[in-house]
Amino acid sequence: MNSGDPESDLLALLAHAELTGFLHTSRAASQAPTTDVQVALGRLAVSQFGHYERLASRLRDHGHDPAEQVAPLADVVRVFHERTEPHDWLEGLIKALVGDGIARDFAREVASRVNPELAELVAADSGSSENEQVVAAAVSAAIKEDPTQAGRLTLWARRVLGETVAQAQAVAVERDALADYIVGGRGSGWNLVELGHLMASLTQSHEERIRRLGLAREDD
Amino acid sequence: MNSGDPESDLLALLAHAELTGFLHTSRAASQAPTTDVQVALGRLAVSQFGHYERLASRLRDHGHDPAEQVAPLADVVRVFHERTEPHDWLEGLIKALVGDGIARDFAREVASRVNPELAELVAADSGSSENEQVVAAAVSAAIKEDPTQAGRLTLWARRVLGETVAQAQAVAVERDALADYIVGGRGSGWNLVELGHLMASLTQSHEERIRRLGLAREDD
Repeated sequence: MNSGDPESDLLALLAHAELTGFLHTSRAASQAPTTDVQVALGRLAVSQFGHYERLASRLRDHGHDPAEQVAPLADVVRVFHERTEPHDWLEGLIKALVGDGIARDFAREVASRVNPELAELVAADSGSSENEQVVAAAVSAAIKEDPTQAGRLTLWARRVLGETVAQAQAVAVERDALADYIVGGRGSGWNLVELGHLMASLTQSHEERIRRLGLAREDD
Repeated sequence: MNSGDPESDLLALLAHAELTGFLHTSRAASQAPTTDVQVALGRLAVSQFGHYERLASRLRDHGHDPAEQVAPLADVVRVFHERTEPHDWLEGLIKALVGDGIARDFAREVASRVNPELAELVAADSGSSENEQVVAAAVSAAIKEDPTQAGRLTLWARRVLGETVAQAQAVAVERDALADYIVGGRGSGWNLVELGHLMASLTQSHEERIRRLGLAREDD
């Protein structure tokens, strides 16, 4: 985020999210108890790495070194991961899926507001529903075996969402030009309001996603 | 390895090696200190997963479920990984590279002896030398910073090789039809002799590989 060019800042943010998504999804794969789930998570991880490569390539087209551009974000992302360190493979699995879902929703929302070309870039090759089904089946099986898991895992999914929002807001406050770009350039007075709408939309998609995984809201 | 069909056994062995290679390489990536090394290891991991997908697809063509075919090998591979648990990211990195190198050499040796079609399958998309250079540079930098690392890492690389050979021999003793197939079907009396030649060849390639990483033999 050296340049002050908000499109490059956004590309760097998305690229870094995909790269760390790849690392965490593959770690969840290594802890999965069956080959089917390992392979489903492996495919998700490979797709995330492919997104990273495309975003990094776009950054190079803009004359930026992806590693340098991403470096100032490292602290924010490290804090996120420190606060969402999974305690077991199920938490790792849910973090991978929830984190990937939020990153993809975020990219889609932002791209549809400001940059159709970027929308095309982030929409390509998104996770297949077949893989999501394999993973959802693994979560369901774990809950069926021990129904007390459902509450714990729902809270965990909410914590991953909460930490994502907290870190996104930290970036937005610090990088006004980026926040302005993301919400469509209506002037900085609008930024926090528009970011609020964006977060509300991401939260709603998140609730739908965890329902598909067989998890319910804690107050249901 | 349910079938007793040695080609399917071999495909399952190679597929499982690529899948676990993917998992361990991506874990090394998650521990790497720079984005450049993370990305280089990420590319290696993605290439290993691609190999897995191609080998698994071939197994399905043969009428086998890759997950089922691989299951009887899980113990051997688990023992290997338990005995080569990295203590830090450099050991993880070397394990990823050395393991991938041995798996690729093994596949090439075997394929060239018995099955040109398989040779084509395993040769495709092998790790680029550019990635190997990025990783070698990271190892060199670590050794430059602390020269006492060189001996420890060389011994570590040798241990990874030794455990690979030990587990391969365990498979060969238990699966005579597979060993026979691998060494070219000259009859079981030849198997251990031919396997010895194969292991000697793999060891030599290994020594060349660790020299390229800037590591020397312990007795140099």
